[in-house]
Amino acid sequence: MARIVQKFGGTSVADVERIQAAALRVKAEVDAGNEVAVVVSAMAGVTNQLVGWAGGIGPRSDAPEYDVVVASGEQVTCGLMAMAIQALGIPARSFLGWQVPVRTDDAHGKARILKIETDELARRLATGEVAVVAGFQGIAESGRVTTLGRGGSDTSAVALAAALNADRCDIYTDVEGVYTSDPRIVAKARKLDRITYEEMLEMASLGAKVLQTRSVAMAMRYGVRVQVLSSFTDAPGTLVVDEGEIVEQQVVSGVTYSRDEAKVTLTQLQDRPGVAARLFGPLAEANINVDMIVQNVSVDGQTTGLTFTVTKQDLDRAVQVLEGAREELGFSGILADPNVVKVSVVGVGMRSHAGVAQRMFGALAEKGINIQVISTSEIKVSVLVPEEYTELALRTLHTAFDLDAE
Amino acid sequence: MARIVQKFGGTSVADVERIQAAALRVKAEVDAGNEVAVVVSAMAGVTNQLVGWAGGIGPRSDAPEYDVVVASGEQVTCGLMAMAIQALGIPARSFLGWQVPVRTDDAHGKARILKIETDELARRLATGEVAVVAGFQGIAESGRVTTLGRGGSDTSAVALAAALNADRCDIYTDVEGVYTSDPRIVAKARKLDRITYEEMLEMASLGAKVLQTRSVAMAMRYGVRVQVLSSFTDAPGTLVVDEGEIVEQQVVSGVTYSRDEAKVTLTQLQDRPGVAARLFGPLAEANINVDMIVQNVSVDGQTTGLTFTVTKQDLDRAVQVLEGAREELGFSGILADPNVVKVSVVGVGMRSHAGVAQRMFGALAEKGINIQVISTSEIKVSVLVPEEYTELALRTLHTAFDLDAE
Repeated sequence: MARIVQKFGGTSVADVERIQAAALRVKAEVDAGNEVAVVVSAMAGVTNQLVGWAGGIGPRSDAPEYDVVVASGEQVTCGLMAMAIQALGIPARSFLGWQVPVRTDDAHGKARILKIETDELARRLATGEVAVVAGFQGIAESGRVTTLGRGGSDTSAVALAAALNADRCDIYTDVEGVYTSDPRIVAKARKLDRITYEEMLEMASLGAKVLQTRSVAMAMRYGVRVQVLSSFTDAPGTLVVDEGEIVEQQVVSGVTYSRDEAKVTLTQLQDRPGVAARLFGPLAEANINVDMIVQNVSVDGQTTGLTFTVTKQDLDRAVQVLEGAREELGFSGILADPNVVKVSVVGVGMRSHAGVAQRMFGALAEKGINIQVISTSEIKVSVLVPEEYTELALRTLHTAFDLDAE
Repeated sequence: MARIVQKFGGTSVADVERIQAAALRVKAEVDAGNEVAVVVSAMAGVTNQLVGWAGGIGPRSDAPEYDVVVASGEQVTCGLMAMAIQALGIPARSFLGWQVPVRTDDAHGKARILKIETDELARRLATGEVAVVAGFQGIAESGRVTTLGRGGSDTSAVALAAALNADRCDIYTDVEGVYTSDPRIVAKARKLDRITYEEMLEMASLGAKVLQTRSVAMAMRYGVRVQVLSSFTDAPGTLVVDEGEIVEQQVVSGVTYSRDEAKVTLTQLQDRPGVAARLFGPLAEANINVDMIVQNVSVDGQTTGLTFTVTKQDLDRAVQVLEGAREELGFSGILADPNVVKVSVVGVGMRSHAGVAQRMFGALAEKGINIQVISTSEIKVSVLVPEEYTELALRTLHTAFDLDAE
């Protein structure tokens, strides 16, 4: 007997029929003798409708009230799912965030889970009852409803699995698992049987939208075994686990990309101490995240060039902020380029294998792809290339690192 | 300064624009120096969608889960309304049933309010903040969400007004008030400035759908002054008050009707003691309410005829139940007739004025309308007539009792 948390995302509970299909997956785990807690998202489309209504009231929307409105989406699914499980002859009951309770801080709209009280849940699970928990929501110390922010239902599920000390947290979604690359672009992409937390974390933050970053970080921290799988097929999914559980480790596990990058280059920047701090200070104050940074070697000993990336949506604001500080910073020009893509190779195997970066740069060079910026971490190498090379770069690297399916 | 409860029904909050319009009505009361609590229904159509989803899961729907699903409708409006009021520069916050808390029994789907704790609400109202309360919902001692049943938002509003000792409870709806008769049928129907609780109670239970019966009974019990008015015009509405507040009392205040009646006649029923009990026992067991009853005088001293009414939707079931007991009851035939209407005249003035029934029967007879069954109470006289006479009967009685507008 195991204790399982099953999480069903928006497309997996999009209508009554899908909720009933999901309930059958719950039944399968119960029939196998397992204790089952279920976490649900809002039905696909419902959250957007709620957000639309809230936005319609006006831009001065109050965050606590926004949470009251938006949290109703998961409440609906939660009740319907409990009914659907009961209809299969299995005792079940719903728990809203405040009923569990899922205690959070009071950062409405992006609350963090502080503690999940699981005494009653565990007692009920032990009697064979299925607990259906509304994802994405909690209760602040003020007694008000909070939400965890978009995608927060994954985090709810992992946090619940951690609190319940569950054997596995199954995240049902509309893809069959984690792939070596985006199958819509790389036809030879393969589903991974297993991936490490760290790789998943890099891939999530680099743009692979299978799991929300926060949920992966939480799973890693608490050692929750997460399985990503499709609610539309019966194929096994991808297990996200500790490095020790992976026997044959590839050097690179995946090739990923993010189109949400824009490049800013400052030309003839005064090359003197502290210039970087003076540059990035105003950006940070304006809440603009800077990702990759490269500073050119000064040729004349007095000026230098500096290139960095921000998200596409922050680009215009970043340029404005810099223009405002042009005199103080002393640069001659700003070049803004939204037509770039960040392509990355990720793999914990890099730690023990040298030469990944060279192999990457070599493969791209061979296809005539010009690298604009480079950044690396212990388990990934990212390069910024012109956006038009996205597909070519992905396929080239997928082949170069022996990831192609036979 | 007064303390006002404003309740906005489904059509008054049907979309973002109407919620904003309703918020302006809240502002008007605040600007007038009043303390204001607001009770909201679900946006028109939302409850039906939620009920449809719940019904789609299957007929074995669990009542507590049904409540979880359906209560989400008022939750959405509650948050949106608080935002809309804030957008007008007035401090406001939402309260869900469990947050107030509105304590109810655990009869899920048709819960009764036991107690509303108003300490925090009253404290906030005193600071000038508007409290927006989700109607129709509460929390049982079990900690689970309950709903009061359809139309329960009126009851929520009146109960809150009673608990807060409010000076008035304004029920905003899509009609301008309570009319002497249905204006769609009786062109000369007039809006009443005032009506007594008792009359309103009779009219509500007789089919005038302006206010829910339970809410009127509660208003009467606690002496809550209720005003019914339109959220689409600025005309004054109808005040539902104690008899003592009405100066010039008409004998009859309104003429109302209910099409939701069906007639059952048993012929040649054995005329012996206890036959009525044996007849209505099985119907009561089958949860079928019997309304009007008339037993014919026995002509032969051995058999009699008996006629009674049930709701149209119970008719088939009532016939089945009686057929099953035919042998025991000993009757020769069952005649079922759904084509009937109950027409009633209502007025507390009847208590002190004799002759209302005669005037009613005379007026109907003059138009050739055959009365099938009669029932009376202290302040109303009801007759069952063939459904095709509905309009004629209403207009005839409206004129006969001097209710026509000039």
